[in-house]
Amino acid sequence: MDLFEQLVAIENIKRLKARYFRCMDTKDWDGFAEVFAPDAVMDMTSEVGATEEAITKGNIEIAAFVRAHVGDVVTVHHGHTPEIDVTSPTTATGIWAMEDVLRWPEEAPLQALHGYGHYHETYELLGGSWRIATIRLTRLRLDLE
Amino acid sequence: MDLFEQLVAIENIKRLKARYFRCMDTKDWDGFAEVFAPDAVMDMTSEVGATEEAITKGNIEIAAFVRAHVGDVVTVHHGHTPEIDVTSPTTATGIWAMEDVLRWPEEAPLQALHGYGHYHETYELLGGSWRIATIRLTRLRLDLE
Amino acid sequence: MDLFEQLVAIENIKRLKARYFRCMDTKDWDGFAEVFAPDAVMDMTSEVGATEEAITKGNIEIAAFVRAHVGDVVTVHHGHTPEIDVTSPTTATGIWAMEDVLRWPEEAPLQALHGYGHYHETYELLGGSWRIATIRLTRLRLDLE
Repeated sequence: MDLFEQLVAIENIKRLKARYFRCMDTKDWDGFAEVFAPDAVMDMTSEVGATEEAITKGNIEIAAFVRAHVGDVVTVHHGHTPEIDVTSPTTATGIWAMEDVLRWPEEAPLQALHGYGHYHETYELLGGSWRIATIRLTRLRLDLE
Repeated sequence: MDLFEQLVAIENIKRLKARYFRCMDTKDWDGFAEVFAPDAVMDMTSEVGATEEAITKGNIEIAAFVRAHVGDVVTVHHGHTPEIDVTSPTTATGIWAMEDVLRWPEEAPLQALHGYGHYHETYELLGGSWRIATIRLTRLRLDLE
Repeated sequence: MDLFEQLVAIENIKRLKARYFRCMDTKDWDGFAEVFAPDAVMDMTSEVGATEEAITKGNIEIAAFVRAHVGDVVTVHHGHTPEIDVTSPTTATGIWAMEDVLRWPEEAPLQALHGYGHYHETYELLGGSWRIATIRLTRLRLDLE
């Protein structure tokens, strides 16, 4: 893959992640499912109170999992300064700095979360479109209320 | 327009928006007026307390409108994860995630604002430079003090 | 330098700055030293309580300086909307919007800092890799606790 093709892939993967954030925060769950490969794996085991169930497989299942956790929560997720490596014409890796700000409905046991960390991801080109293949979150800091 | 020309346009539009943020927050109002097309339209009707007057036409008028609202306010505006589509050699569209943090002078009725949302924009290439043609803000969350 | 080479340089400089942030916040001080040119200059004289000593020369010295100040502090540094100009095949300039969120250990005199501003930087291509040559921080706002 030449440098130009890599630049195009990098821009497309940045946009893919932009859609991940926008679909989650605007609660577009069909759009959210489409940013993942069909056999994608999401690893949220580093999250507060997470168990082994925090590893979810399949793009439909991932969208259902995230919707179950934050479907009725006001969420803001922002991604910053991606480091994307195109490792072959159809695969890539990426690290994104992130910040999330969540506010639960009044009756919920947890009221608010403000966190910071990094997404560690891999991507696959499927049918001409880049998709998230694996996603894992590590935290720098997590404030709960 | 080939892919290479699109990549160049996308980078130039990202820089245009960077200038929008920097000029607003450093109160460079002449520079701020120049990021807009002469007949640009800014739609802030979704903002708190906004009326129809929150639609402003013309780059000079937009700079005057924004200056009147936040000229003496400490403002921080950040933009994230742009999704830019180059729709012709001279037009483009974009969505930006955003966060803004405002602190008014002590005597003001409103003390502080912390918001999150998305800019929905269109761009035009005029005389070799990309300009913002239309800008509209939607909110995910808005905290006032 | 043609437009394509400039695009490649811009993406590489964005990644360089991403590594600056990630290495600082994950306390990878060897990695942090490597983002700077050997004779790099960091100017933090605009920071709270800074003296002339806040100008540091040399990449090893810069890493030691930053480590001494925030090695045991939970830090989050995010960079936004870069404006990068490639000024020759081996030099470039950049402005980055930034936000930092720091929390000191309980026994420290200062408890927390939340700031916003801009990095003003220059870069050099050395041995095929872009490095930060000079870095200076200006502030829009700084909240201390």
